[in-house]
Amino acid sequence: MIETDILIIGAGPTGLFAVFEAGLLKLKCHIIDALPQPGGQLTELYPKKPIFDIPGFPEVLAGDLVTNLMEQIKQFQPGFTLGERADTIEKLEDGTFIVTTDKGTKHHANSIAIAGGLGSFEPRKPLIQDIEFYEDKGVKYFIKNPEEFRNKRVVIAGGGDSALDWSVFLSDVASEVTLIHRRNEFRGALDSVDKVQELKNEGRIKLVTPAEVIGINGSEHIESLDIEENGAHRKIETDYFIPLFGLSPKLGPIANWGLEIEKNAIKVDNALDYQTNIPGIYAIGDVNIYPGKLKLILCGFHEATLMCQSVYQRMNPGKKYVMKYTTVAGVDGFDGTRKEAEKAVVKAID
Amino acid sequence: MIETDILIIGAGPTGLFAVFEAGLLKLKCHIIDALPQPGGQLTELYPKKPIFDIPGFPEVLAGDLVTNLMEQIKQFQPGFTLGERADTIEKLEDGTFIVTTDKGTKHHANSIAIAGGLGSFEPRKPLIQDIEFYEDKGVKYFIKNPEEFRNKRVVIAGGGDSALDWSVFLSDVASEVTLIHRRNEFRGALDSVDKVQELKNEGRIKLVTPAEVIGINGSEHIESLDIEENGAHRKIETDYFIPLFGLSPKLGPIANWGLEIEKNAIKVDNALDYQTNIPGIYAIGDVNIYPGKLKLILCGFHEATLMCQSVYQRMNPGKKYVMKYTTVAGVDGFDGTRKEAEKAVVKAID
Ligand SMILES: Cc1cc2nc3c(=O)[nH]c(=O)nc-3n(C[C@H](O)[C@H](O)[C@H](O)COP(=O)(O)OP(=O)(O)OC[C@H]3O[C@@H](n4cnc5c(N)ncnc54)[C@H](O)[C@@H]3O)c2cc1C
Ligand SMILES: Cc1cc2nc3c(=O)[nH]c(=O)nc-3n(C[C@H](O)[C@H](O)[C@H](O)COP(=O)(O)OP(=O)(O)OC[C@H]3O[C@@H](n4cnc5c(N)ncnc54)[C@H](O)[C@@H]3O)c2cc1C
Repeated sequence: MIETDILIIGAGPTGLFAVFEAGLLKLKCHIIDALPQPGGQLTELYPKKPIFDIPGFPEVLAGDLVTNLMEQIKQFQPGFTLGERADTIEKLEDGTFIVTTDKGTKHHANSIAIAGGLGSFEPRKPLIQDIEFYEDKGVKYFIKNPEEFRNKRVVIAGGGDSALDWSVFLSDVASEVTLIHRRNEFRGALDSVDKVQELKNEGRIKLVTPAEVIGINGSEHIESLDIEENGAHRKIETDYFIPLFGLSPKLGPIANWGLEIEKNAIKVDNALDYQTNIPGIYAIGDVNIYPGKLKLILCGFHEATLMCQSVYQRMNPGKKYVMKYTTVAGVDGFDGTRKEAEKAVVKAID
Repeated sequence: MIETDILIIGAGPTGLFAVFEAGLLKLKCHIIDALPQPGGQLTELYPKKPIFDIPGFPEVLAGDLVTNLMEQIKQFQPGFTLGERADTIEKLEDGTFIVTTDKGTKHHANSIAIAGGLGSFEPRKPLIQDIEFYEDKGVKYFIKNPEEFRNKRVVIAGGGDSALDWSVFLSDVASEVTLIHRRNEFRGALDSVDKVQELKNEGRIKLVTPAEVIGINGSEHIESLDIEENGAHRKIETDYFIPLFGLSPKLGPIANWGLEIEKNAIKVDNALDYQTNIPGIYAIGDVNIYPGKLKLILCGFHEATLMCQSVYQRMNPGKKYVMKYTTVAGVDGFDGTRKEAEKAVVKAID
């Protein structure tokens, strides 16, 4: 059982920044995300695109913002359960919660902050018979650890940035990379398309277009794929099949937690602390709804901050909290580090 | 008469960022501040100190954050009335407002955003007879344009960072800099104290301590100051007297605008749009109060953003606003510039 003060569901920018604000209040956080890496929409959907409306950044790449947030919170040593979806919740008699993931990992926390964005990112699966059967036998919708593919044969399917970028990346790792797409045209950053063209010319990526994977063969593990290419059928031998057809977010099981839902989002008390109808469960960032709600990153930061104050009150009833500016009080990490402004001196001049 | 859509009172981080969010909605802003420069508390009180809780910045100097915000909003060409205090407000029959400063500058706007922080920064004046008489005859509480002092004699009084830093700065500009303080010890950044010591040793700053200015002489303009030094009295000839005893924020005349005030702050509807009890007047950032309010920079950013949406509705009644992500739609400046993400290409690989 993982123990923490605030269990955060969703490692998008809102969930990540919540760790920082909680840390200032000496509250520990643990984050669950269905994706294999932190960053939410920013990492998954537009890591190399600039955002222009983060206050203080005239321009920042989405991926860099996530890197910065990870750097900012690292001193508070958040725990992570990645690649798992929060599925069920149980409220204990003492008002604390146990949340269990689809893989059975259990987390026990005083309070829950749902920072689930548009929902848990679930892969769009190709319509191939028996594909579920192969999901732990060589079919991968996410790449969690590229080393897994070292000196193996991989087939990637898809026509967007993920398919292009992972083909490029794995061409250095795998023994053979085949990229299959149902058209000749790819849609992505110019750089990525050009790089794939170059690697194809060098024979380091095999391109099969226009084509589709229509079947999977193998018993213990994938052995080959059935391909339809220009109306003709053939087989490609491979160790892995990685269909990258995008992810779609689904509120999923959280919708059945007894929370008030409106327009696929969770209703919260925005006049106070972004708490839901269940005391101790908060919803922050894109996942919540209230009058005037804007699904913007900077709004999630504010919501996360007020939520942490409320959890502090829940955990320290009656204790008066005195807010301190980070500039004045410094920041004490849970890892023993301390950040602080240089102190003024009092010194004679003579 | 200065015409604008949103008249912002206060050029702190909240007021500055409001310009950006307004600009995205094609609303023009003009900002009034009592200080001679933008940045509010950050520039005036702790420009060289690090802030650790701005989301996405593990550490940022307050002065740099202001520079970044100015850079971020410059495409929306805000107007500035600096060094003037917003004193009176008049609501016209059509629901728009006229705000007049202490110097008589008039501004006409659809909506008012009070981003006044802890109040208008007013200098702490030394208790010297007739000092008011000399305020436009050589007494300066702020340094707006250092060139004013080129080849002039200046006397600076004070023992903190401002007195130290301006003494150093003006030692390159003025013909003579005298620094007077009632103790031998100064309180400030070690660098600044050491620099003043060095310039004193080189004879480029005259130090008079422990001493106090007790009188001002001159008819059309300051000619000399009366000094009490170690119990003895003497005169120092000078062109300017710059007492830098700090600034204290005062809500001031805004307190009489008919707004609901609580704990020296303006009550707002935080469940919707940070509007005050007077429709069309909003209060954002440190200056407002609501249940759970935190006087933090990041909260002001969120409040400014929601306020702008509300003004948009006020100015475009009934028009449905469709929010666009800056990453997706780009940012069109009022100066004709356009920022946008690189577009994806659709390109064949063969
Ligand atoms: C193309 C694009 C451009 C954008 N541009 C901008 C912009 O310029 N400015 C701006 O402010 N915003 C922009 N946005 C919106 C911005 O990305 C979101 O507001 C932001 O990501 C919300 O952050 P979040 O942390 O609330 O949620 P998310 O980033 O959506 O993260 C939520 C995370 O929670 C996880 N999750 C959900 N449910 C579960 C569960 N049950 N178990 C485990 N994990 C779960 C998801 O997998 C996901 O990783 C843009 C969005 C897109 C798609
Ligand atoms: C030493 C110190 C350290 C801090 N550290 C942190 C930190 O680490 N993190 C954090 O989030 N916050 C910190 N703060 C607080 C932070 O500075 C404030 O939250 C922030 O400045 C508020 O911004 P604002 O734009 O609302 O108001 P302000 O920055 O106060 O700006 C308001 C401006 O309005 C002007 N004004 C007011 N009334 C009038 C009028 N009638 N006419 C003309 N002008 C007027 C004032 O002159 C002022 O310039 C710190 C503050 C101090 C003093």
